[in-house]
Amino acid sequence: MPTYNFDIIVIGGGPAGYAAAIRGAQLKKRVLCVEKENLGGTCLNWGCIPTKALLDAGAFVRKVRDHAGEWGISYDNLTIDFAKPIARSRAIAQKLAKGIAHLFNKYGVKHEVGVGQLAGAHKVRVKKNDGTTAEFTAEHILIATGAKPRTLPGVELDGKTVITSREAMTLEKQPKKMAVIGAGAIGCEFADFYNAMGTEVHIIELLDHLLPIEDEDCSIQLERSFAKRGINIYTKSKTDRVEKTPNGVKLTVATPKGPITIEADVCLMAVGVAGNLDDLIAPGVNLALEKGHIKVDKSYRTNIENVWAMGDVIGPPWLAHVAHHEAVHCVEHICGLKVHSIDYNAIPGCTYTHPQVASLGLTEKKAREAKRDIRVGKFPFSVSGRALAAGETEGFVKLIFDAKYGELIGAHMIGENVTELLAELVLAKQLEATEEEIITAMHPHPTLSEAVMESAGVAGGRAIHL
Amino acid sequence: MPTYNFDIIVIGGGPAGYAAAIRGAQLKKRVLCVEKENLGGTCLNWGCIPTKALLDAGAFVRKVRDHAGEWGISYDNLTIDFAKPIARSRAIAQKLAKGIAHLFNKYGVKHEVGVGQLAGAHKVRVKKNDGTTAEFTAEHILIATGAKPRTLPGVELDGKTVITSREAMTLEKQPKKMAVIGAGAIGCEFADFYNAMGTEVHIIELLDHLLPIEDEDCSIQLERSFAKRGINIYTKSKTDRVEKTPNGVKLTVATPKGPITIEADVCLMAVGVAGNLDDLIAPGVNLALEKGHIKVDKSYRTNIENVWAMGDVIGPPWLAHVAHHEAVHCVEHICGLKVHSIDYNAIPGCTYTHPQVASLGLTEKKAREAKRDIRVGKFPFSVSGRALAAGETEGFVKLIFDAKYGELIGAHMIGENVTELLAELVLAKQLEATEEEIITAMHPHPTLSEAVMESAGVAGGRAIHL
Repeated sequence: MPTYNFDIIVIGGGPAGYAAAIRGAQLKKRVLCVEKENLGGTCLNWGCIPTKALLDAGAFVRKVRDHAGEWGISYDNLTIDFAKPIARSRAIAQKLAKGIAHLFNKYGVKHEVGVGQLAGAHKVRVKKNDGTTAEFTAEHILIATGAKPRTLPGVELDGKTVITSREAMTLEKQPKKMAVIGAGAIGCEFADFYNAMGTEVHIIELLDHLLPIEDEDCSIQLERSFAKRGINIYTKSKTDRVEKTPNGVKLTVATPKGPITIEADVCLMAVGVAGNLDDLIAPGVNLALEKGHIKVDKSYRTNIENVWAMGDVIGPPWLAHVAHHEAVHCVEHICGLKVHSIDYNAIPGCTYTHPQVASLGLTEKKAREAKRDIRVGKFPFSVSGRALAAGETEGFVKLIFDAKYGELIGAHMIGENVTELLAELVLAKQLEATEEEIITAMHPHPTLSEAVMESAGVAGGRAIHL
Repeated sequence: MPTYNFDIIVIGGGPAGYAAAIRGAQLKKRVLCVEKENLGGTCLNWGCIPTKALLDAGAFVRKVRDHAGEWGISYDNLTIDFAKPIARSRAIAQKLAKGIAHLFNKYGVKHEVGVGQLAGAHKVRVKKNDGTTAEFTAEHILIATGAKPRTLPGVELDGKTVITSREAMTLEKQPKKMAVIGAGAIGCEFADFYNAMGTEVHIIELLDHLLPIEDEDCSIQLERSFAKRGINIYTKSKTDRVEKTPNGVKLTVATPKGPITIEADVCLMAVGVAGNLDDLIAPGVNLALEKGHIKVDKSYRTNIENVWAMGDVIGPPWLAHVAHHEAVHCVEHICGLKVHSIDYNAIPGCTYTHPQVASLGLTEKKAREAKRDIRVGKFPFSVSGRALAAGETEGFVKLIFDAKYGELIGAHMIGENVTELLAELVLAKQLEATEEEIITAMHPHPTLSEAVMESAGVAGGRAIHL
């Protein structure tokens, strides 16, 4: 057997890459992780975490500005310093990136700063930031380079007036007016934040609803909540043109009511992401791709032996927790541990708008299209004591069960803190819990989580509180 | 078979009583519920719900007053109107009580306003509020009269300077200084609220720690958090005397450092509750009691045939969700449905202080005393991305597993929103989930619930983020 520099080289230091590196080191492998920027990837530096910091700030600003009186709080001369939540968000990302570096030290993972390139079955070339190049070999190479924002055909991302999420979380000046193209999780989250901060927000979505992949009931509730907060929503609407103007940007949008124009200071492009393959594959290396992503089998094996790929670079659902679990799975498999396959029919998804949206499994529409015999239970937070106490009564929990055995096949929630209610349903799905088991599980009172129990009760015709 | 007025009479309209009444009606029984006050019992009117409304108000006041600057919010002349959270809390209780009345109408439960008395195996006497009396018969009688606050020997509850939780949630004027005797959930929650509103709070506990029945790690963390917020804590301290003074009340307390006196405007007595047996048992009816509570078997059957009891009146753990599940269990059993016994070794408990405390199962100390072979995992929120984003990094998740099979035997959490994380662990315990299953369940990112997964990972020596 040839001698390699490392047992495992991981290209990319995001939630897939750093998890793979740490897990490999825990399992006594000699691991190198190649990452050109801060450790933590998009998620930690430019995605999940800093956006949550912004959204929490927006929610607090909105509560203080619009609802303080209901709680007995009054003040004069409220001022909001836009720069502060931005700086706070960056500081948290920095702190967490240092945390990953600390874990690399603790577990003995080596970090090479630079752009990694697959130079052969066992070889990685690193272009360092100083322009030099180094090569390393390993028995296994794991590719976890993530994804990068896409744009619309013909629309250039200039980072100033037509921006991606990355610029949207570091703007120096708060825009007075913002257009958001695309109403997936990223588009909706920034619409929520900038609206909360006082920016006039216009959000445009080609499909029928905001968050078009969610259960329609959740999307409709989010549209109501957004509309109530003054966000301008254009669904079933196609952005035909994005032009720069002296003061910003002008969009021409085909809406169901006819064409309109929207002028704004900035336009956030949130139409999705694509696998990050920049400089990844050296000439002559035939790594198989599919629709712009690396093709893998269910063990995350590429077409090249001992080269594996995971996370956003292998395609949807482009979620950090999926990347993390794929990485751990792949490394444990390489190390000979017994592993269970990930069930891609039950991937949890969260959107941190206000109200939040959290879901897994089949939507009601998809379940009916698949001719499943289902029972559906829906319980509104407007009758939850905990939600009333918190003053957060928008939304509901909706559970979908297979009618025959009561197996949970879908969970769709919108409301305060529902992202924290999702873990129970993840475990329920993993353990094949039934409607009966969810109803009889003693959910503590008073919690929002009782709505999960009540929703199962509604499906079974035995909810106490509805 | 004799003819009765009803199939079921329930005495008491709290979380046990109203749940029993509604479930009975759902199962086609003719049901009467006797309740002298608003429906919903202590929980809904004077306990769980109105206190949560106050605690949420306190948390918001504290965040605006002490932390606004960190979020970029500034203002002049902040004023807090103490009457507003109190009024808001009462309005929410009223609304929910009406909601239960609405459910009684919907399901056809009859509500008799008055004090119910067990007058025989099948007979209930109702003393109405106008002084008249009525009698009703039923095949089954369910007693769910709840509990009422206790006091210390020789200390009279006058409702003005020596008060119970009931008065503490309706004070017209905010006390400048408050003494709290007893540091269980109720005492700690009011200490948290009044401290947040700006009252000087002194809390006295006979046992070693705040929340003495919780895992010691949680209690110690709560003590740190409370001390940081300026709450004065006296543990291992015995209140020897409570005297009224012209301006309020004076306590003489034996502390480990010697005797001290505490003068305060009011003293909240939070030393526990006792079963509510006032006027419950007619002369000549021999209902068996035990330590001040009604004695029942595991089906909630009393010594009198067809007379059942449930909820706080049968003794600890005095929790609304326990009362609720006991009631549903009892009624379903009466109606001939197949029911599972409640596992009293895995009752979830929540305290809504800041940080919150949530737990179930064995504490580490109890597990070690029982000579269990255990693995313990503890994961701090200080390294959770979601907690950092929210600015709420106090606390941790601590899970205790049986070492042999990895069965979850205890969960102890302190931190932001941990009461909402508990449902997952309730389900895990009910389904006998293992450490491995919790680790591999794909907890969504970024959530506080990931700390549950990480904590299981720590127990198994394979946490990625610690």
